[in-house]
Amino acid sequence: MRRICVDMDEVMADTLSEHLRRYNEAFDEAITPDDLQGRGLWEYAPENRRQQLRDFLDAEDFFEDLPLIDGAQEVLHKLSERFEIYIATQAMTVPNSLGPKFRWLQRHFSFIPPTNYVFCGNKSILLADYLIDDLPRNLQRFRGTGLLYSAPHNMNTTEYVRVNDWNEVAAYFASVED
Amino acid sequence: MRRICVDMDEVMADTLSEHLRRYNEAFDEAITPDDLQGRGLWEYAPENRRQQLRDFLDAEDFFEDLPLIDGAQEVLHKLSERFEIYIATQAMTVPNSLGPKFRWLQRHFSFIPPTNYVFCGNKSILLADYLIDDLPRNLQRFRGTGLLYSAPHNMNTTEYVRVNDWNEVAAYFASVED
Repeated sequence: MRRICVDMDEVMADTLSEHLRRYNEAFDEAITPDDLQGRGLWEYAPENRRQQLRDFLDAEDFFEDLPLIDGAQEVLHKLSERFEIYIATQAMTVPNSLGPKFRWLQRHFSFIPPTNYVFCGNKSILLADYLIDDLPRNLQRFRGTGLLYSAPHNMNTTEYVRVNDWNEVAAYFASVED
Repeated sequence: MRRICVDMDEVMADTLSEHLRRYNEAFDEAITPDDLQGRGLWEYAPENRRQQLRDFLDAEDFFEDLPLIDGAQEVLHKLSERFEIYIATQAMTVPNSLGPKFRWLQRHFSFIPPTNYVFCGNKSILLADYLIDDLPRNLQRFRGTGLLYSAPHNMNTTEYVRVNDWNEVAAYFASVED
């Protein structure tokens, strides 16, 4: 059985909408994902707001209740019949996210056993056939086949096979040997 | 640079002594590691105490302040000059250990960056040249070269290269190409 690693933030969980919600509320702004084509909120925000941007992520409740990305549950559930699914999330730069991420996965993806969760930093450590991730840096370090999951910040990246949504993920793996 | 993954419990951290301390205190016993040659505390304890044994591990403070295994700091510090060191610990079966394990590593192994921590379950996910681990099951799943770190429970295992202490780990890698 071939193995697929799946990133959490902006692939399974809509981290960006929660980050924008807190940012807009704190600074009385109305930024939407459309304002962020080709750049992250980190590049968009003025430098004197970046510490606050970081503090949002460090809050104990930030990762506790993130909305799901459309289709992630259904498509992963279906793929788990044909592939080994591992969740690989860069949690070590935000240690407060460890507990919340574990609970979020249990709540929304109970069909994936916790022994298949990988909370890591550098994703070059993953031994898998595929990695679905929104960060080009993670795909670059990965030794298998990388799929770039579309997010506003990566819209100008052209180096990887791009999947725009979970329907496209399903279509990609429909033609792949398991 | 070649990569070494290192397990935490019973390799870097003396988990067994804390487990025994709590067990002996709760049941008014005086079990020592010498009583556990070739078997874990799980096999040794009568069946009606196994839930309690599990509860000890689930306590929020269990992993917070474990003693160090002799030599782990010094030898890993030295090895980190020649090898990429990753910490690979099976944390997902005890989710309360996630935060404490992170803090413990930061406190005692500050020379290893958090991006090299891997909190996982099934260790077949690790892409590395070596894995130092006390559990034969983990070495069996690992695709690189496994080193069995001696612990009372694994004394009868003969399938792997055995290292009895951190001096033997240092000696092993002294003759290995980096």
